[in-house]
Amino acid sequence: MITQEKAVTPTFGNEIISKLESIAGRNNVISDAEGLYAYSFDCAHVPFSKNYPRVVVFPQNTGQVSEILKLANKHRIPVIERGAATNHAGGCSPVKGGIILHFSKMNKILEINNQDLTCKVQPGVVVGELQQEVSKLGLFFPPDPSNLAVSTVGGGVALSSGGPRAFKYGTFKDYVLDLEVVLADGSVIRTGAQTVKNVTGYNLTQLIVGSEGTLAVITEATLRLIPKPETSNVLMAYFNTIEDAVDAVSAIINNHLTPSVVDLIDKKTVQTIEAFYPTGMLCDKEAALLIEVDGDDESVKHQQEKIISLCKEHKAEYIDCAQDETQKNRIWTSRRSAFGACAQLAPNVITEDVVVPRSKITELSKGIIEISKKYNLITMVMGHIGDGNIHPNFALDLRDKKQKDNFEKAKAELFRLAINLGGTLSGEHGIGCQKANFLPAALDKTTLNLMLQIKKVFDPNYILNPEKML
Amino acid sequence: MITQEKAVTPTFGNEIISKLESIAGRNNVISDAEGLYAYSFDCAHVPFSKNYPRVVVFPQNTGQVSEILKLANKHRIPVIERGAATNHAGGCSPVKGGIILHFSKMNKILEINNQDLTCKVQPGVVVGELQQEVSKLGLFFPPDPSNLAVSTVGGGVALSSGGPRAFKYGTFKDYVLDLEVVLADGSVIRTGAQTVKNVTGYNLTQLIVGSEGTLAVITEATLRLIPKPETSNVLMAYFNTIEDAVDAVSAIINNHLTPSVVDLIDKKTVQTIEAFYPTGMLCDKEAALLIEVDGDDESVKHQQEKIISLCKEHKAEYIDCAQDETQKNRIWTSRRSAFGACAQLAPNVITEDVVVPRSKITELSKGIIEISKKYNLITMVMGHIGDGNIHPNFALDLRDKKQKDNFEKAKAELFRLAINLGGTLSGEHGIGCQKANFLPAALDKTTLNLMLQIKKVFDPNYILNPEKML
Repeated sequence: MITQEKAVTPTFGNEIISKLESIAGRNNVISDAEGLYAYSFDCAHVPFSKNYPRVVVFPQNTGQVSEILKLANKHRIPVIERGAATNHAGGCSPVKGGIILHFSKMNKILEINNQDLTCKVQPGVVVGELQQEVSKLGLFFPPDPSNLAVSTVGGGVALSSGGPRAFKYGTFKDYVLDLEVVLADGSVIRTGAQTVKNVTGYNLTQLIVGSEGTLAVITEATLRLIPKPETSNVLMAYFNTIEDAVDAVSAIINNHLTPSVVDLIDKKTVQTIEAFYPTGMLCDKEAALLIEVDGDDESVKHQQEKIISLCKEHKAEYIDCAQDETQKNRIWTSRRSAFGACAQLAPNVITEDVVVPRSKITELSKGIIEISKKYNLITMVMGHIGDGNIHPNFALDLRDKKQKDNFEKAKAELFRLAINLGGTLSGEHGIGCQKANFLPAALDKTTLNLMLQIKKVFDPNYILNPEKML
Repeated sequence: MITQEKAVTPTFGNEIISKLESIAGRNNVISDAEGLYAYSFDCAHVPFSKNYPRVVVFPQNTGQVSEILKLANKHRIPVIERGAATNHAGGCSPVKGGIILHFSKMNKILEINNQDLTCKVQPGVVVGELQQEVSKLGLFFPPDPSNLAVSTVGGGVALSSGGPRAFKYGTFKDYVLDLEVVLADGSVIRTGAQTVKNVTGYNLTQLIVGSEGTLAVITEATLRLIPKPETSNVLMAYFNTIEDAVDAVSAIINNHLTPSVVDLIDKKTVQTIEAFYPTGMLCDKEAALLIEVDGDDESVKHQQEKIISLCKEHKAEYIDCAQDETQKNRIWTSRRSAFGACAQLAPNVITEDVVVPRSKITELSKGIIEISKKYNLITMVMGHIGDGNIHPNFALDLRDKKQKDNFEKAKAELFRLAINLGGTLSGEHGIGCQKANFLPAALDKTTLNLMLQIKKVFDPNYILNPEKML
């Protein structure tokens, strides 16, 4: 059903494909219609554009990436970097066709240095696998995006991904020391140094972290590691109102405690999880808090006791504190099942990612519920309350025009709400093509103009991940 | 002795001074010769240039900074931002004359938000005072440059300053969420958001942090705070060789421990401290480690016991572990006296700031001692060994041509050594005008060129802190 005519962009013909095959090897280039169709969308299955890539290339080393970019730059061909495509904002959607650079064959952990507490990895390394490997040496790479079983380091760096543990440990940006990147013209540079501190020149590393592949192509990352905490434990506390849960979080913070995770799960999310992946969560409470603490044995016990007592003081109705590994896994399984459960409700689930100052979480959460009612959407509110970062999951059928229109309106209101509360569009998922239109609402004209000029410095022909972010 | 003719740069006359007086108020402008002389150098008392500023202005708000920059940009007048001038790299030296913007009158803590764990401050706020204020609310702003009793937040942001606690807590860059900055053309922008996570557009915040006033003028900073650790304790462990000390640090890290501070002090530094500010340190051991742990009571005790046992295993000759507040202060006083003690040895003390991967500390330290012998320099080696960041203090008389020449040669060798060991020129002091010539040795041509183009985007007329860094 899919014809090659429909699939190709008009920008280049087979002679470019042949050149790409000679650079990366014939087996590492996909240009047949079915193959291209598979790479025309990402995990969200949202049709951000009707375009397919013209070709998908699997480079195996930096030299090949450089050659591909020289070619693309010469012929003004869009280049879209792709890892596991687990982002939620259409970040690797080929909206202008072009070449998809797929990093699954640059997936080696090049070094784990337990003296310097660093590792050097290729962009295609899976985050969860990196965590397991460093863990064997007693080390810890904290960023834990929910999709870490498949998502890649390259994607994590490109979006500065976080996850539940960001509350204590920060996001990807806090662990990137140095990058090897290929610029649009094919030149290869290093952005930082192999040291934990560095103020030698401008911080190009942090400029590229979170830039969603629009400034340069990441081919290697040097990441900071930390000693692995001795142990951890987790509890789930249930509250009758979202306010009570928020108050409990404030009390925890004001009592000098630093849990590794403070996540909020609302009633609708709990009910959805229990409907599809039951673990015995309480379905009649408005809000649940998942709180994890880590450290040495004594400290974990001490912190947990204090947290339990503070939750009780702030009207927790019930506290489910893990007593062993099985119970820990049970609690974490329920949290991790949220997205999968929501996905059972409708053909599409869209996970949003607004962030506000922590003190505005109650207003944001209630606002989301109101907006959803107004537009008749099924919405589950959850997120990293400790960071002020909420991920509402909207379950809907985007083929239904009414639902789609309603969702677009709800999304615009959601962003307006977050900005009005002193927050912004994205905490850890990025802007992609899904939110690019909203950027002018979050940033002033002069700031946006500076960003556009920086883009031009790095990529004067606008070939790198076009139509994304800016 | 100082005449106005000598002091002024030829770039502008009294009509500009009058305009500056009408912007900032007559009492907030200094243009007399003695006044300008005082602002022609910084705390290092190193004559980086023979130029004086043409005028020093003390703005009181962002609007005034904007007006001043509009004027300066129109007339192509250099603008040099200045806080407490405690940097060690000539960062606020007026090498091209021009206007010094002095931030001592923009020194208000605008907000401390103990719900969001953030504070908003003006650039002239003294770091130590901010720490005291947030501490009253049980909060903690970790960066602790040694000069924190006088150094300012603006300077800390401009250089991404660190300090001993950077080992556990990072440097200024890890705490800056948002900046209000004035661009070279006078426009005022915000670089980030009031949230702990933010991936909305490029990370302009981190591009400006550490840019040493060359990209924009910081007029307000929103900083992240964390809960204050319940308690802390400190010990000093003495070793017969630097290798033993380095091995002990590796063992501590490999045993999952995260002290807040791991500093190295070599024999020559200990002897110098004891000669001028005696506290009873052991003068016959090659190396001392100052190790601080923090956390809750149980955790501090637990970590300290483990650290003592690991230091003993790695041949510590003696361990001086504080038993009470007095002893804690005694140990910290000796560490903090290092710079003052070195300053007694000669008219100038120059503190260097190279950084290498942690595993290269022994080679770096020994290399520094060798280079010093070769060039007949009095050198005291100390620094943040946990970060691979060494601050050798060179005591010398820069009026003596031979000593000056020797020092210049030693400096070049030191930088070469650090770069060859996989390190770089500066961990936390910046490049300023002192190291600008060495930047091409640390960064490749393409990287440097990108930085120059970014500079041009922000400051097309090159008025902001000229001749610094790049």
